[in-house]
Amino acid sequence: MANHATRLSSLRAKMAESSVDLLAVGPGAHMQWLLGFATHADERPCFFLVSASAECFLMPALNAEGAREHTDATFFSWADAEGPDSALAEALAHIGAASAKTVALDETMRADFALLLLGQLPGAAHQFSDHTVGALRMRKDEDELVQLKANAEMNDRAMQAAFAAIKPGMSEIELADVVRDAHAADGGVSEFRIVGSGPNGAFPHHHTGERRLQPGDAIVIDVGARRNGFPSDMTRMAVLGSAPDGYDEIHTIVDRAVEAALATARPGVKAKDVDKAARDVIAAAGYGEYFVHRTGHGLGIETHEPPYITSTSETVLDTGMVFSIEPGIYLPGRFGIRLEEIVILREDGPEIMSSLPRDVVVAKV
Amino acid sequence: MANHATRLSSLRAKMAESSVDLLAVGPGAHMQWLLGFATHADERPCFFLVSASAECFLMPALNAEGAREHTDATFFSWADAEGPDSALAEALAHIGAASAKTVALDETMRADFALLLLGQLPGAAHQFSDHTVGALRMRKDEDELVQLKANAEMNDRAMQAAFAAIKPGMSEIELADVVRDAHAADGGVSEFRIVGSGPNGAFPHHHTGERRLQPGDAIVIDVGARRNGFPSDMTRMAVLGSAPDGYDEIHTIVDRAVEAALATARPGVKAKDVDKAARDVIAAAGYGEYFVHRTGHGLGIETHEPPYITSTSETVLDTGMVFSIEPGIYLPGRFGIRLEEIVILREDGPEIMSSLPRDVVVAKV
Repeated sequence: MANHATRLSSLRAKMAESSVDLLAVGPGAHMQWLLGFATHADERPCFFLVSASAECFLMPALNAEGAREHTDATFFSWADAEGPDSALAEALAHIGAASAKTVALDETMRADFALLLLGQLPGAAHQFSDHTVGALRMRKDEDELVQLKANAEMNDRAMQAAFAAIKPGMSEIELADVVRDAHAADGGVSEFRIVGSGPNGAFPHHHTGERRLQPGDAIVIDVGARRNGFPSDMTRMAVLGSAPDGYDEIHTIVDRAVEAALATARPGVKAKDVDKAARDVIAAAGYGEYFVHRTGHGLGIETHEPPYITSTSETVLDTGMVFSIEPGIYLPGRFGIRLEEIVILREDGPEIMSSLPRDVVVAKV
Repeated sequence: MANHATRLSSLRAKMAESSVDLLAVGPGAHMQWLLGFATHADERPCFFLVSASAECFLMPALNAEGAREHTDATFFSWADAEGPDSALAEALAHIGAASAKTVALDETMRADFALLLLGQLPGAAHQFSDHTVGALRMRKDEDELVQLKANAEMNDRAMQAAFAAIKPGMSEIELADVVRDAHAADGGVSEFRIVGSGPNGAFPHHHTGERRLQPGDAIVIDVGARRNGFPSDMTRMAVLGSAPDGYDEIHTIVDRAVEAALATARPGVKAKDVDKAARDVIAAAGYGEYFVHRTGHGLGIETHEPPYITSTSETVLDTGMVFSIEPGIYLPGRFGIRLEEIVILREDGPEIMSSLPRDVVVAKV
């Protein structure tokens, strides 16, 4: 199990490095990581506040019971009749942050929460969590890696169920339902199931729909499920019967882009260099304009979290980081190809979580 | 069906009244109400922007396909490689809002979205949606009322299923599962099922748990489900066999508080006066300190939305508003009693959506 006291100490070290006087997180993934639970999220302002010397909750009285089961932290509660303002002022004073100069905000908290807090700290500079809790969350501990690996294996089984189910006349939604049921049978809750068949595959975030699979279709299958508080994510390709014209060439290019990113990702390398490695392969093959998204994203408590593998990210990769490598080429009106691995960055390079090859699966007509 | 062009015109009238130059909503309920759909929500900044004369989307290129199916609005798309800054600047210039002085922000949007926008409008004052889209959403149209009423009837059936299932030795979770299954059988997706038995009922937002029902328990049952994009919400009380000591007196007081709020809620009355009517009954009976929350909340696309019926709300109630009236008395270590109606405010007063009486239901031992 995660040691939350250690996480809080590591956080304070990061805050000191970045001259952050105050960190404020709302109900959500940062709170989950720091404390092992997240409070009820509603329209009532709720923060976990951390200064150099102390921490406390601003807590709507109505939601205090659920939180009390999980923590001994000091609560500054507020009732509906009063509103949160004076409880927040007391909370900030209690932890010595009433004159905080630099605040790190949970970027996912509601706008009204953030502006309530900034309104009580006139002149304070804000940043988001990139250099504090976000930076810490990028490096996974052994327990997180075990969970993510188990979920990747679950996702492999769901992908294989999809491969086995593909047949002509089946709708994208029907194929997605096979994946959902496979996730459920494995104790997971399916989170997303992109099935992009034929020309629909050329939309990277295609909304799985009623289109029916036809012989000659290329099919993008991008799926993930949540179990034990952690997600999974993977993309593989299938074709029904025969591949469309030009498919094999593009599949090979995308696979080489994955390989180039895998070969580049090492501790000490910047995320943008991994993106560049994948992008250069695709650009050199003449398809640069058809690779329309970043190369990858981190995966932890959230399906998308730092490190983001983009062309501009200065994030320095390190051991224990978990992220996707998922280049793609999308040919409007024809088909799309994306191949996605989730990797753990080890001392000597990326360890791929999935056991499934990236070769195209040919389903029988 | 809702007329979204009319909603946009009404919005501009409200913006003019409040001297708001720019409204920005993120993926969520405000967007759903304004446009009839909401874009995919992820970490990529996405806004629907409205000025006095024009409107447009700031749109992550990757999520554009899904949105395109629903709207002809102008998109200012941005790719992962570029980030949103220049597309946002172009979008603001396009709708004539690059020098907006007063911005109304969707209070539910992510903090990083809000601060990205405010960062491009130095010196602009911000407010939240209370006087613009929030104010409009409070007054429901006929289609919304029909949906909410149908969902209230569904919730009545789920509540009756719960009443019929209560028996000694059953856990709170097992009783909640009866409600969930009843919602599902009716085509709904159960959203919350608070079952607070015995002393657990004294926590207003109790986390339904493993406690087993015992003879002499009072049981708070507060449930709701979503169907066709709309929620439901209702609280009723049951006792198992016989009521605990003092139960009947408290139930009568809470019911009188509901009646007092119903008698006060009229078009033109302030929300705080409705709260006061309920609170005064409970305070006069000597239980003021045990009514620890607001009297109610609006219900529409969201389960909690304006108008909030609090002791400080200056919101003037009007016809077509839908909100809860749900006073409660919570006696620590003993039991809690809450009775919750959802009402439509009509010209001559509130119309209660539920058909179930508020009398305590006595389940057989």
